[in-house]
Amino acid sequence: MAQQHLDPTDPTAEAVTGDALAAYLRAQATEFLRALRLHRETGGNAAVGAEESVDAARLLRRSARRISGSLHTFRPLLDPDWSEEMRPELAWLSGTLGLEHAYGARLERLLLALHRLSGALVFPGQTVAAPAAVTAAAGSRASGAARVRAAAPVHAGGPADPAPTAERGTLTVGAAKAGALLERQLTLARTRAHSTALQALGSSRFHAVADKVAVLASEVPLTPTAPTTGLHPQAAAAEERLTAAVAALPLLTAGHPYNAEALVHGLSPDPSPHPQDGPWHQVRLLLRLHRYAREVLHAGNAPVDVRLLAAGQALNRHRDASEAAAAAAQAARTPRIAPATAYALGVLHADQRHEVEAARFAFQQAWQKETVEAV
Amino acid sequence: MAQQHLDPTDPTAEAVTGDALAAYLRAQATEFLRALRLHRETGGNAAVGAEESVDAARLLRRSARRISGSLHTFRPLLDPDWSEEMRPELAWLSGTLGLEHAYGARLERLLLALHRLSGALVFPGQTVAAPAAVTAAAGSRASGAARVRAAAPVHAGGPADPAPTAERGTLTVGAAKAGALLERQLTLARTRAHSTALQALGSSRFHAVADKVAVLASEVPLTPTAPTTGLHPQAAAAEERLTAAVAALPLLTAGHPYNAEALVHGLSPDPSPHPQDGPWHQVRLLLRLHRYAREVLHAGNAPVDVRLLAAGQALNRHRDASEAAAAAAQAARTPRIAPATAYALGVLHADQRHEVEAARFAFQQAWQKETVEAV
Repeated sequence: MAQQHLDPTDPTAEAVTGDALAAYLRAQATEFLRALRLHRETGGNAAVGAEESVDAARLLRRSARRISGSLHTFRPLLDPDWSEEMRPELAWLSGTLGLEHAYGARLERLLLALHRLSGALVFPGQTVAAPAAVTAAAGSRASGAARVRAAAPVHAGGPADPAPTAERGTLTVGAAKAGALLERQLTLARTRAHSTALQALGSSRFHAVADKVAVLASEVPLTPTAPTTGLHPQAAAAEERLTAAVAALPLLTAGHPYNAEALVHGLSPDPSPHPQDGPWHQVRLLLRLHRYAREVLHAGNAPVDVRLLAAGQALNRHRDASEAAAAAAQAARTPRIAPATAYALGVLHADQRHEVEAARFAFQQAWQKETVEAV
Repeated sequence: MAQQHLDPTDPTAEAVTGDALAAYLRAQATEFLRALRLHRETGGNAAVGAEESVDAARLLRRSARRISGSLHTFRPLLDPDWSEEMRPELAWLSGTLGLEHAYGARLERLLLALHRLSGALVFPGQTVAAPAAVTAAAGSRASGAARVRAAAPVHAGGPADPAPTAERGTLTVGAAKAGALLERQLTLARTRAHSTALQALGSSRFHAVADKVAVLASEVPLTPTAPTTGLHPQAAAAEERLTAAVAALPLLTAGHPYNAEALVHGLSPDPSPHPQDGPWHQVRLLLRLHRYAREVLHAGNAPVDVRLLAAGQALNRHRDASEAAAAAAQAARTPRIAPATAYALGVLHADQRHEVEAARFAFQQAWQKETVEAV
């Protein structure tokens, strides 16, 4: 079993102490404040969903996650009261800010899948969208297969931006209606998430977090002994939690292509039909914590670990497909929809559950690879 | 590329001539007549769909296919007029006799899939059915994965045998309704096929075929030079047609797990949405002809070629899943069905199309394997 170990032969390894953690937290706090300024400049009075505003929210989440993750992993080196107070606030913030993006990405994924399932290759009056974006979103399942993927419209615009109806010409009535239904439901959810995020950013709760992060940018509340305490035991513990969680995954099944496991509850009467996804989501979070711990140890200059990167991408895909499948199933429970719409949503749900299975296979493949370079 | 070659070092190879073909055809004709007797003893007045009658029909088809296939492959060694007249009649017969079984197997496959998709493991008041049968029918996609598959009722009875309604307790309303709809439609089709087969077996057209086969059992109309003509060129040509057809298949794509190719037209408005299946069906037929030619050359004692066997099973699964997916899509076009029913049929359709993709992957894996033993 290939495992990621912190390299004991690294001559600088022993030198990494709480000081490095403080430097990392200060740097992330500074990033947070920069993203916040960017957001106030663009998001406050710019059009809803403007690209810069989306970027700023993404950067805010990025540093909030890193601060929160480091507080968790290196808990014993930090003032416990401060740390306990800070983490849930950062989690609330990144959760609130992430929803708008998540709904948008989910809609895009489902519309791309509907077009792919309709055998539509190119759309009338539309050139193929930026290949990189399309490949990342839709072609992920065919990585390695040399063929052209269906290109579908990428909705990079705001929540009020409707898909041109002309594109629906290549779809069946059912697929078109399913697309319209999903667009209505997920656009509404996205708009609400956008408002909630704006409200959150104007709330006193947020200002309290921002003030704390501002203090963190210059002064990290380490414990008295932390500056001379090594970070390796905590980083190693984070890695162990990851490897233990991975070991508990059904990787043997996942490594058998077409094991048909992900759709086992596709028609289950159980209202929470996919408890099987939970352990994978958990590994996704633990992998992230491990990655952040590596960043702390390497002072932000951690060499790219291709294996971790591939494994993380597979788990992101797993999460996205799992949620997209749930959204399709949810839309199918809308009262008074046409049978053709429901049928298309059923095909779409199953397609996304197979994407879940494909992502597990991709994770298994990535994880089994030996680490080529030392960490 | 691993290829199946007729072994030129086999000392007996050159001795195989038209005489061997005649012996093979006589043996198959005798099998045909034996199956026919069995059918008359059991099928004539036995209950509709009795097991012996089903077996007899299967044996009739088995020898009819072998005679027909040999007439095709070794055409130049046989009286052309007789051969041209005989083949379409044998094709008609095996086609007519095969339909009843096909509808029954399709219904069983779809009901098993509905139960699997509902996460149902065992059913109230029912012990697990014969493991071998269940594994062959439903567990094919998980071969190698060590886990227990969902066991579902196997309808070995006749077309009038309904599934116990108690089993539907573990299904959602949609899945149960979809199952009932499929059962109604496919049972009707199966009953009609049964009547058609019975009519065919009582027709003068059938009696003419049976008379010809009876003559064939003692007297094979070889051409004058056939008894001393070698069979290898024709057998090699049959193999070449197979390898050429396989070479034209998209095996590179098929070899990439989760390539998402089989569902590309899952929602296509095109009324014949799966032209991509055609070349695979064609390879299935050519593989069968190659197998029969091997039987002729080895006088019925051909060593089992595991690779051919696995490839053939994968292609049978491909055909079965392709037709089951089409049946689910067809059922979804029934007027006035509930959205929940349509949704379940959509999930089922996509599931079977993924089974198509899984079968292509299995074929690719089997075909790439080197032949271990000489033919």
